[in-house]
Amino acid sequence: MSMTISEKILAKASGNENVRAGDIVWAKVDRAMMDDVLGPRVQIAEHMKRLNKKVWDPDKVIIISDHYTPPANENQAEIVKFTRDWAKEYNIKNYYEFCGPCHQVMVEGGHVSPGYLVVGTDSHTCMYGALGAFSTGIGSTEMLGVVATGEIWLKVPETIQFGFSGKTKPGVMAKDLILKATGTVGHSGATYKAMEFVGDTIRNLPMDERLCMTNMAVETGAKNGIIACDEITKAYLKEVGAAEGETFTSDEDAVYFHKYQFDVSGINPLCACPHEVDNVTEISSVGHVRIDQAYLGSCTGGRYHDLKLAADMLKGRKIAKGIRLLVNPASRQIWERCAKEGILTTLSEAGATVLASSCGACLGVHSGDLAGGEVCISSTNRNFLGRMGSKDSEVYLASPLSVAASAITGEITDPREFL
Amino acid sequence: MSMTISEKILAKASGNENVRAGDIVWAKVDRAMMDDVLGPRVQIAEHMKRLNKKVWDPDKVIIISDHYTPPANENQAEIVKFTRDWAKEYNIKNYYEFCGPCHQVMVEGGHVSPGYLVVGTDSHTCMYGALGAFSTGIGSTEMLGVVATGEIWLKVPETIQFGFSGKTKPGVMAKDLILKATGTVGHSGATYKAMEFVGDTIRNLPMDERLCMTNMAVETGAKNGIIACDEITKAYLKEVGAAEGETFTSDEDAVYFHKYQFDVSGINPLCACPHEVDNVTEISSVGHVRIDQAYLGSCTGGRYHDLKLAADMLKGRKIAKGIRLLVNPASRQIWERCAKEGILTTLSEAGATVLASSCGACLGVHSGDLAGGEVCISSTNRNFLGRMGSKDSEVYLASPLSVAASAITGEITDPREFL
Repeated sequence: MSMTISEKILAKASGNENVRAGDIVWAKVDRAMMDDVLGPRVQIAEHMKRLNKKVWDPDKVIIISDHYTPPANENQAEIVKFTRDWAKEYNIKNYYEFCGPCHQVMVEGGHVSPGYLVVGTDSHTCMYGALGAFSTGIGSTEMLGVVATGEIWLKVPETIQFGFSGKTKPGVMAKDLILKATGTVGHSGATYKAMEFVGDTIRNLPMDERLCMTNMAVETGAKNGIIACDEITKAYLKEVGAAEGETFTSDEDAVYFHKYQFDVSGINPLCACPHEVDNVTEISSVGHVRIDQAYLGSCTGGRYHDLKLAADMLKGRKIAKGIRLLVNPASRQIWERCAKEGILTTLSEAGATVLASSCGACLGVHSGDLAGGEVCISSTNRNFLGRMGSKDSEVYLASPLSVAASAITGEITDPREFL
Repeated sequence: MSMTISEKILAKASGNENVRAGDIVWAKVDRAMMDDVLGPRVQIAEHMKRLNKKVWDPDKVIIISDHYTPPANENQAEIVKFTRDWAKEYNIKNYYEFCGPCHQVMVEGGHVSPGYLVVGTDSHTCMYGALGAFSTGIGSTEMLGVVATGEIWLKVPETIQFGFSGKTKPGVMAKDLILKATGTVGHSGATYKAMEFVGDTIRNLPMDERLCMTNMAVETGAKNGIIACDEITKAYLKEVGAAEGETFTSDEDAVYFHKYQFDVSGINPLCACPHEVDNVTEISSVGHVRIDQAYLGSCTGGRYHDLKLAADMLKGRKIAKGIRLLVNPASRQIWERCAKEGILTTLSEAGATVLASSCGACLGVHSGDLAGGEVCISSTNRNFLGRMGSKDSEVYLASPLSVAASAITGEITDPREFL
């Protein structure tokens, strides 16, 4: 039977060769990730205690306190402490804190391999699909079941193929490509579908860029985002010390719900205007929009590649007077590499404030919240009303290069002005 | 008439040659500093508008948003925005934000010179006395008067002389010396007095260390802390581009309320135990106290000298498993210098999380708050009950070297173990 990658992984995970889209399967989970916000503290701890359950396999559970580190108030501190204590009580060796957003820690910690089924208590868990895994965000109640049994039921999603071919224009990044896809299908256009990214453009993207694309799969409602494993994937797995896993590719005659094809040579730098991720337009057509804050970072747009390109643009330049540029590297490892290579210094010399790696202002929990009337351009993944602070603030999503260019001028700016 | 430095500066500021301790004088203010917490938003903005007043001299007013940057929530963001907007409305050119604690920004921004009378809406404004200025914290209502008229009434404080002589033992820093003084006189032992630091030990301290001592003058209730200007002061003023100012020295037969004399060769590394700054004991006698957090930073213990010494100790070592070391450089300038010199990388490689410079966790407003039951050793200036988060947490104050040593072992540790 012809199958897509996503179907093949769920077939393997459920021990059933013949699954097809629409089937409901019981699948064995390879890795389960919990964060501080929606992890142990939400139902899981209480019911594990009540049921007198052990964690099904402590080596397959990874817990990462990231949203609330470093804690911005006492309540956040209590949640992190609770999460830490729970991890200790249940012998979870892979407990991380103060290291940055969970998703980056998961991939660079070597916890994800091709062919894995990974679930996590954060919607952007879909990011790991860039490594050829089937990964998806689940609620805390579902996670309770996973933590106790190692299994989950899932409906096998239909797959939408997103083909990208051609060479990107200067100034166009993966963020622009995924915004193009999101703008095309809309914020619920791929609900419960697998988003499979294919084509020569994708094959030529470095891993840092691929991770940006799969990270945002959920922004169209997708169950998962996935990119088939190739040499770039294998090199990355080796670099982070992850297991080789099992490589799957979609069959040529696999059944797709739909196929989109984008000629990237026609894509210009884009921007998602307030307050929806699919409110996408060319950044050059936004007009003169003054910004108060430029936010470069997060698990979507704060990887090495992102900060390097932004620093190259900002080198020898200064950010506009009266605005702030906040830099939030996607992990402490990235922070450290950028520090060593002088990238953080370059950013600081341009006027940036370099934050400790965390989820931070992306979701308005610390280190960069917005006041009423303020406007931010951000390399993060969501611009929902009030997400970064006041309900009277506005967030424009764009690529790290567009964030850097806008920081220089003080208004939303096409990055090609500085290339 | 014989006078102390503090009396001489207030004589000059009040245009009255013969002031003496106990006199109430009307004095002209040379510089007024406001922060975000207790600045324009507290009475000042409202009453300036009501009185239809202009700022007496916008070039002499410095406004620094530091406690709430980067904002940890919407309310903090609104306060920073209010402060920024007010500075703009009243033509305050020297408005800073996202640059770190106000006190360090004041001295490294060249806003303080010897002989100045400086007031600020933060209790640790007394820090600038290390530059030979008379500086003190005032409330917002008093600041309203200063901002409107440039004048303030002050009772001329009696002076207590704190003499330090001899060579410090290895591992002893300025923080230990000021803890010694604080522990000796008690937390209200110098209430409304000038604390004048003299002696060969003080003369040999680099400016970064002197600033730590005057910063904590208020912890004994002192009105101000002061160190006479010398070559080290002049070199520092030149480095930061500050005006030369006017050098005052206390007359040999000046009247002192009291004189303390410390032979520093007998002082071992100290520690202020919970929950009072004067609860001082030798760090080696604290016993086995496990820590959850080590906090290296703030306007008290986060200067270049502090981070350099801590990094030298941590180089090639790792912090204890299960704890976190948070590093909060005292300003963005210090952050940048330490980044360039590889100090931040060394700290990160040892396991530290390097924060953006801010007031942050020192007063429990973001980036490192403590949960109930947690213990922190900190190079900050206050260990009051609940100051860094939960009322059930505990804070031990010690030098940057002691913080680094404790981070290595995971319990409160005499820094000489690693020298």
